[in-house]
Amino acid sequence: MYRDPVLSLQPLAGVPAAMRPLRVGMIGIGTVGSGTFRVLARNQAEIAGRAGRGIEVVMVAARNLPRAAGIVGDGIPLTDDPMHVATHPDIDVLVEVAGGTGPARDWVLAAIAHGKHVVTANKALLAEHGAEIFAAARQHGVAVAYEGAVAVSIPIIKALREGLTANRIEWVAGIINGTTNFILSKMRDEGLDFAGALAQAQALGYAEADPAFDIEGIDAAHKLTLLAANAFGTPVRFADVQVEGITALQGVDVACAEQLGYRIKLLGIARRREEGVELRVQPALVPAAHLMAHVNGSMNGIMVKGDASGVTMYYGAGAGSEQTASAVIADLVDMARLDGTHAAQRVPHLGFHAHAMSQLKALPRAAVHTSHYLRVPVHAANQIEAVAAFLAARRIPVQQVVLAAQEKTGPQVLVLTGPAPQGEIDLAVHALQASAAVAGAVTTLRVETLAG
Amino acid sequence: MYRDPVLSLQPLAGVPAAMRPLRVGMIGIGTVGSGTFRVLARNQAEIAGRAGRGIEVVMVAARNLPRAAGIVGDGIPLTDDPMHVATHPDIDVLVEVAGGTGPARDWVLAAIAHGKHVVTANKALLAEHGAEIFAAARQHGVAVAYEGAVAVSIPIIKALREGLTANRIEWVAGIINGTTNFILSKMRDEGLDFAGALAQAQALGYAEADPAFDIEGIDAAHKLTLLAANAFGTPVRFADVQVEGITALQGVDVACAEQLGYRIKLLGIARRREEGVELRVQPALVPAAHLMAHVNGSMNGIMVKGDASGVTMYYGAGAGSEQTASAVIADLVDMARLDGTHAAQRVPHLGFHAHAMSQLKALPRAAVHTSHYLRVPVHAANQIEAVAAFLAARRIPVQQVVLAAQEKTGPQVLVLTGPAPQGEIDLAVHALQASAAVAGAVTTLRVETLAG
Repeated sequence: MYRDPVLSLQPLAGVPAAMRPLRVGMIGIGTVGSGTFRVLARNQAEIAGRAGRGIEVVMVAARNLPRAAGIVGDGIPLTDDPMHVATHPDIDVLVEVAGGTGPARDWVLAAIAHGKHVVTANKALLAEHGAEIFAAARQHGVAVAYEGAVAVSIPIIKALREGLTANRIEWVAGIINGTTNFILSKMRDEGLDFAGALAQAQALGYAEADPAFDIEGIDAAHKLTLLAANAFGTPVRFADVQVEGITALQGVDVACAEQLGYRIKLLGIARRREEGVELRVQPALVPAAHLMAHVNGSMNGIMVKGDASGVTMYYGAGAGSEQTASAVIADLVDMARLDGTHAAQRVPHLGFHAHAMSQLKALPRAAVHTSHYLRVPVHAANQIEAVAAFLAARRIPVQQVVLAAQEKTGPQVLVLTGPAPQGEIDLAVHALQASAAVAGAVTTLRVETLAG
Repeated sequence: MYRDPVLSLQPLAGVPAAMRPLRVGMIGIGTVGSGTFRVLARNQAEIAGRAGRGIEVVMVAARNLPRAAGIVGDGIPLTDDPMHVATHPDIDVLVEVAGGTGPARDWVLAAIAHGKHVVTANKALLAEHGAEIFAAARQHGVAVAYEGAVAVSIPIIKALREGLTANRIEWVAGIINGTTNFILSKMRDEGLDFAGALAQAQALGYAEADPAFDIEGIDAAHKLTLLAANAFGTPVRFADVQVEGITALQGVDVACAEQLGYRIKLLGIARRREEGVELRVQPALVPAAHLMAHVNGSMNGIMVKGDASGVTMYYGAGAGSEQTASAVIADLVDMARLDGTHAAQRVPHLGFHAHAMSQLKALPRAAVHTSHYLRVPVHAANQIEAVAAFLAARRIPVQQVVLAAQEKTGPQVLVLTGPAPQGEIDLAVHALQASAAVAGAVTTLRVETLAG
């Protein structure tokens, strides 16, 4: 009988761990889990060719075992006990793609305590429990990788932690929630109001039945937390992010922004200032000619300003089964390319070694310093001068004042200011609101030029 | 006398190499070299905080020693003998930023033979001698890193080799030469012809006195060679790239493309097809609404289509002193984060291990398959139908035929075709050229939709 001469070789005694396949246990085989399984199978040869060894799923925990069996087939042991996978002696890496924060925290900490590396795409988990999880991983000498937690298809964590390491990062700003970007694109393109655009997003599967997490900016804030930590070498601190969603955004402001040459995007922004760091998620005006204004539909785009690199930008899908799998598997390849000890030590979890972490304080809302857009409903068009004079008298740096070309509403004065602290803007708007010329609630939005 | 308690500790015996600073020898202290030196000094603390140890320039080779001394100061030994640095026992890594291909090849090979890692931003060197250099590095167990060789500020090599490792890459397409993008942006924005835009680029320092290397597409082809090798796991093969620059591009075509809703960009494209791989640099029409059409001035932008990730895009400066330093130093941090052996073995030079390299053949020009733009000078406007009929009769998939809104030239018929092999387009255009309706040379350009 013919025997392939290579296959007939006896296995070498003492093959180092780096030469045998990396053994993966998965918790969760839903959208991301099944995508990961599928891509690992489909691109097996290319992935092993890049990693230098195979990556094998050896065990899967799932809630619905028959459904899971339909996805992974007969050859892979299934369990409905996630902890069994997290602590099993036969796995090198736990891939946690079940989501949630309570049980996921327990599984991840158990895996770490058992010396397993962890790959997760769970931004909520890391934004809320990252400090604890990374500390445990350091203590046990394992890696916790999470490229899939932010802007899934884009290797942005790698860019920040490894690609831009020469730089003092000045700011990171991004469209990091696809659902809200889809809604904002619809509002602009089709003149819809928020509710109408949200309904379309839900009908098309771009928004969940309960969309609060996305539209209130929480999801973007989770991701911003991780971006900021890696950019500045600060601890993960979700509670410090000023979060404003798009639920209060009116179609009239999308149209007025357009009239002024801007588009409204939900931005996550982390900016280093002398006194501390601004951490904020908010709908903001972006110049229409800016590349960020052309990140449309459900796509994500992130800009990073480094002192040496200048501005770089990263664009791609922010969600999706195989798009997230792309990130999860890249993390696995990173681990497969080194033995465990070196994989764990190579890059610190937040880019900086513990001794070099900085304690930049988060600035309060009043100290945030940007240009502003104001929309001021007035009783008559000729009150435009009164509004301008009122603001100038309060030393708001007014740059442009025009009447809105809106027919449906009463006359509206649009104001663009130069950079000013939010505290001063708030005071001026509060006073303006009480002035006799003003016919309704004044709307304020930040303006971000995203220039060098 | 007060002694700092930390400094007064005796050095530990047997400190592993990974704990002491990474010792760098530089060849070249021109634009890139001085930028690298400056950024290493300025961001010393942050870089060490990320790398886990310091990165120190211990030796510099330069042609002009007094000038070099003015940049690096008194503390660093200078020599005018690059080989002295390349082979010196006191360095761990050679940073080659002198440029050129002949002597640089000798220095790099000598450093490798002496067990040094190499960091270079020299795309010409790697495009022409990469196969030899990478083979030598494998043999000697050292790393050759070259993030600065392509789109300097953008960590695109890292994205391809490490960030997108889950994917079968389908294509890479990019604006990877800033000089030509600056010229094309000027031609469009100011209606200049090629010569006028080139003169402006030269006056502003965006083009060399001898601009041939850039405007004839050679520089872009060097970079495309490296992108393609990392995308597909193919050897570096500059000779296989079909190269067309922008020297023959006419202002009238920039304007006509605009009329049709397109912009002309010099693209480097590597596309996997069933029969092989297309490798080509060429001016091409890109839809005006496409993100790539908004990469303007001297900026670079690269799109990558992966089967799992979908399309991702990377944008940033493609040249500059500190922008290139950002990439060179990122490579050094990668090396500093591991000891030498592991740093060398972690990621294969072209992303794939030697046994997994593929031998996809480069497709000839005639087999390249794209849509096309034709500009056909005719004797009279009513010959538009004759042109359309002529092409249809030769089974060219004509999608749009319009008259150019150009007043300066005679009547011009503009044609957009569907995808067709270049060979068929060439034959049809050759025949059309001889037809009685045609009043001058027919211009053809490729159209790239850069869609999924």
